[in-house]
Amino acid sequence: MKNIKLTLEYDGTNYCGWQKQKNMITVQSKVEEAIKNTTKEEVLLTGCSRTDSGVHAKGFIANFKTCSSVPPNKFREALNAKLPEDIVVLLSENVEEDFHARYNAKGKTYEYRILNREYPSAIERNLAYHVKRELDIDAMKLAAQYFKGTHDFIAFRSQGSSVKGTIRTIFDLNVEENEDLIKISVTGDGFLYNMVRIIVGTLINVGFGKNKPEDIKEIIAKKDRNLAGACVPAKGLLLKKVYY
Amino acid sequence: MKNIKLTLEYDGTNYCGWQKQKNMITVQSKVEEAIKNTTKEEVLLTGCSRTDSGVHAKGFIANFKTCSSVPPNKFREALNAKLPEDIVVLLSENVEEDFHARYNAKGKTYEYRILNREYPSAIERNLAYHVKRELDIDAMKLAAQYFKGTHDFIAFRSQGSSVKGTIRTIFDLNVEENEDLIKISVTGDGFLYNMVRIIVGTLINVGFGKNKPEDIKEIIAKKDRNLAGACVPAKGLLLKKVYY
Repeated sequence: MKNIKLTLEYDGTNYCGWQKQKNMITVQSKVEEAIKNTTKEEVLLTGCSRTDSGVHAKGFIANFKTCSSVPPNKFREALNAKLPEDIVVLLSENVEEDFHARYNAKGKTYEYRILNREYPSAIERNLAYHVKRELDIDAMKLAAQYFKGTHDFIAFRSQGSSVKGTIRTIFDLNVEENEDLIKISVTGDGFLYNMVRIIVGTLINVGFGKNKPEDIKEIIAKKDRNLAGACVPAKGLLLKKVYY
Repeated sequence: MKNIKLTLEYDGTNYCGWQKQKNMITVQSKVEEAIKNTTKEEVLLTGCSRTDSGVHAKGFIANFKTCSSVPPNKFREALNAKLPEDIVVLLSENVEEDFHARYNAKGKTYEYRILNREYPSAIERNLAYHVKRELDIDAMKLAAQYFKGTHDFIAFRSQGSSVKGTIRTIFDLNVEENEDLIKISVTGDGFLYNMVRIIVGTLINVGFGKNKPEDIKEIIAKKDRNLAGACVPAKGLLLKKVYY
């Protein structure tokens, strides 16, 4: 029995997220189908996280157990031949028997892209959130600093998740600007449901001048979802890297 | 009567190119439809060039005459509200009566994107040409120099165009590499049918070692289409800027 680890890139635009659901086309169901066509086995693919509908990934990690004789590094080519163009296996490798894509993850980096200009973009339409009103990037950079460290992030969570415990550690949070594109990169040991998108929504409030950078400290301390910003659209979010 | 100049961005994936054709969905037909819905006039939109099916643009120029009372700079918003998400008006302005998007164009910059790695990209699938075999970028950079200047580019033209004269001037041709993405930028006073895509195909032959950089001189001089490279796929091509 081999334990195959897959590194996946996908454009989430046309999928109802990662997780398999009845009557829904999801990334997990597409990859499981391709594995089944390759190995003739029913496999259960374990993903590193559940990405929401419309969220993209460049380094999503998944693993599955197989008795197939396909050499581990050949799964990449075999699966890519069967997958639609918007899901690509970047790497396939054999890992230790007890490797678990979700339980073993020690951290993740997400990137959120904002297009900040008056008019939208045709080419980036599914890959960035369009914000018309001018954002104060310097204020957002200052605000980002207050998120770093270990905090109770309960104010930055959407309802609908059953995860216990709301304390997480953010190792790094960077706001970068390149012409009209703003990239927000966040690395942490784990994220609550919609946490990245609500943090970005809160940074946008600072960018609009609705909040001051130092308000972040209080918003975290008061643990009140209503003080934090909106949950920004899924299409701007990309899972970049998972750390083990 | 006003003469409105539009600067357009579009993702060409879902269109049969720019030019209006019977029973085909083209960028021109979509924009003319949006103008008609706005002004209630039948207008003829003049484009700076005919981009092929699948080719993209970030600075495509078009113009049309109108008696509408819509303020020139408000066409941007009015048209964007009616256009599909993959076509965006970046700028609308009133220009001199005799401005003609095609005849007045003095030059254009195109960009061609190549993804050079073993496996394809899910996110860039419609925006870059995937080349598996490793390319020698340094050789391609050397080869690019030989295209610059005024030459008869008849060897770099596909059949099917009725344009007279095959002498063109290339002002600049740059090959840039960023991780696995290669961007080829070419600026010239005009381009023959598929000329950019055949130049890129020829540079790829040099990147593979099939031709030496200095062979370009001979390929141009011999005026033989068979000595030049393949016409690479449309999806890697983007019209970036038009000069007047």
